[in-house]
Amino acid sequence: MEKPLILVSNDDGITSPGIAALISVAKEFGDVLVVAPDKPQSAMGHAITINQPIRLTEVHLYEGVTAYQCTGTPVDCVKIAIDKLLTRKPVLMVSGINHGSNSSINVIYSGTMSAAVEASIDGMKAIGFSLCDYSWDANFEVIKPFIRQIIASSLENDLPYGTLLNVNFPVPEDGHIKGIKVCRQAQAKWKEDFDKRKDPFGRDYYWMTGKFVNLDHGSDTDEWALAHGYVSVVPTQFDLTDHQRIAILNQWDCFNHGM
Amino acid sequence: MEKPLILVSNDDGITSPGIAALISVAKEFGDVLVVAPDKPQSAMGHAITINQPIRLTEVHLYEGVTAYQCTGTPVDCVKIAIDKLLTRKPVLMVSGINHGSNSSINVIYSGTMSAAVEASIDGMKAIGFSLCDYSWDANFEVIKPFIRQIIASSLENDLPYGTLLNVNFPVPEDGHIKGIKVCRQAQAKWKEDFDKRKDPFGRDYYWMTGKFVNLDHGSDTDEWALAHGYVSVVPTQFDLTDHQRIAILNQWDCFNHGM
Repeated sequence: MEKPLILVSNDDGITSPGIAALISVAKEFGDVLVVAPDKPQSAMGHAITINQPIRLTEVHLYEGVTAYQCTGTPVDCVKIAIDKLLTRKPVLMVSGINHGSNSSINVIYSGTMSAAVEASIDGMKAIGFSLCDYSWDANFEVIKPFIRQIIASSLENDLPYGTLLNVNFPVPEDGHIKGIKVCRQAQAKWKEDFDKRKDPFGRDYYWMTGKFVNLDHGSDTDEWALAHGYVSVVPTQFDLTDHQRIAILNQWDCFNHGM
Repeated sequence: MEKPLILVSNDDGITSPGIAALISVAKEFGDVLVVAPDKPQSAMGHAITINQPIRLTEVHLYEGVTAYQCTGTPVDCVKIAIDKLLTRKPVLMVSGINHGSNSSINVIYSGTMSAAVEASIDGMKAIGFSLCDYSWDANFEVIKPFIRQIIASSLENDLPYGTLLNVNFPVPEDGHIKGIKVCRQAQAKWKEDFDKRKDPFGRDYYWMTGKFVNLDHGSDTDEWALAHGYVSVVPTQFDLTDHQRIAILNQWDCFNHGM
């Protein structure tokens, strides 16, 4: 009997330790197809490549796994997998493990989460995994049991069209992860602080830097869970409509009357 | 007395006819600061530039308007405006007018909408405007009265933190726009169709193309409104949490018990 198929991508690139860790867990659940960027594509959000061609190259990096590196963005990787590589529907798409947090507002900038969103738009069950540790040699071993459990539950349970999971792992000081919490996305933002420099020709240029600001005091948020040693799981949607606001907007003059 | 300040950006680039049309209306409401990409940045989604420096150059393109072109993405433009250029808080940020639709799922890929989302994250009232006509010489004159009306209403009314407006304009065959409708984002997707070619060296490469598929039969959607000659206004949020799903997920085994 044919084994179930799992599609894997990320944004840190196909050679990152994070994707290697995710592939090793995904293999326990079925056949694995990897289509991931050939270089780091962090913070690419939901960008797609429309003004340049894309290349796709099969690589033999992971034993027993079909893998392609792609010159495009994380979302490009998922799109080209759907159109050119998938011969059957995956039971699951997993993205990551991201080197660094994709909790709260970071979900919007994240290429890792955008790849999962794109798979979800196409109708796949999808999960993005991220570890709150930016280092290349982060310890992915300790979180593998949680990934295994979340993948197993995702395969057993329904996840309706329009919803995917954003999973973030804490790095507790004592090394002990307390459990898993289903959360809402915390209200947070980055306070920009561009570093202005002069190039060798005397011209100004800027590096984007910033400081994360959590504006949310709720204890039901992903930031709270992560700060208290829990894995955060946020059910995430790509319907951006603020449905509650529709009735209120209909009271505005310009929407009430014709021109 | 100091006039109110309006921040303007887009994704088609600072020289596009769409942004020129938007600037001309914005000027009626106050002082205008433009920070926009120096080249087309369509479909960049919420990408930000973290691996390369950014440059910012003042340009004298629009009479009576302070304008900067930026080498970064639309979101970069808003971020650097906030950190380096704004000396007072804008009463409004407007993005566009995009050459082409940002209705339904297009909101996710759109640099124009992502610029507005970024302004909204920072606490500004924000509106993205798009015309469902990709041509460079699209007729922006006919939609200016609607833009004027929507900007005026947005300044008069409250728009709470977390919600911005995604406004799309139809191009009716008879040229007559019937009115404005507040809508939800239609459920829709792009069916990928990559065009595979060979380069002069015999190697494969791909161009992304696709076909828009509206999966939604509702008459309360942006796609319905646009197809029927109405301007669509979708209240849009950057809290991606599927709040209703939290209780259901809590019934999954892995979230119910500890490890």
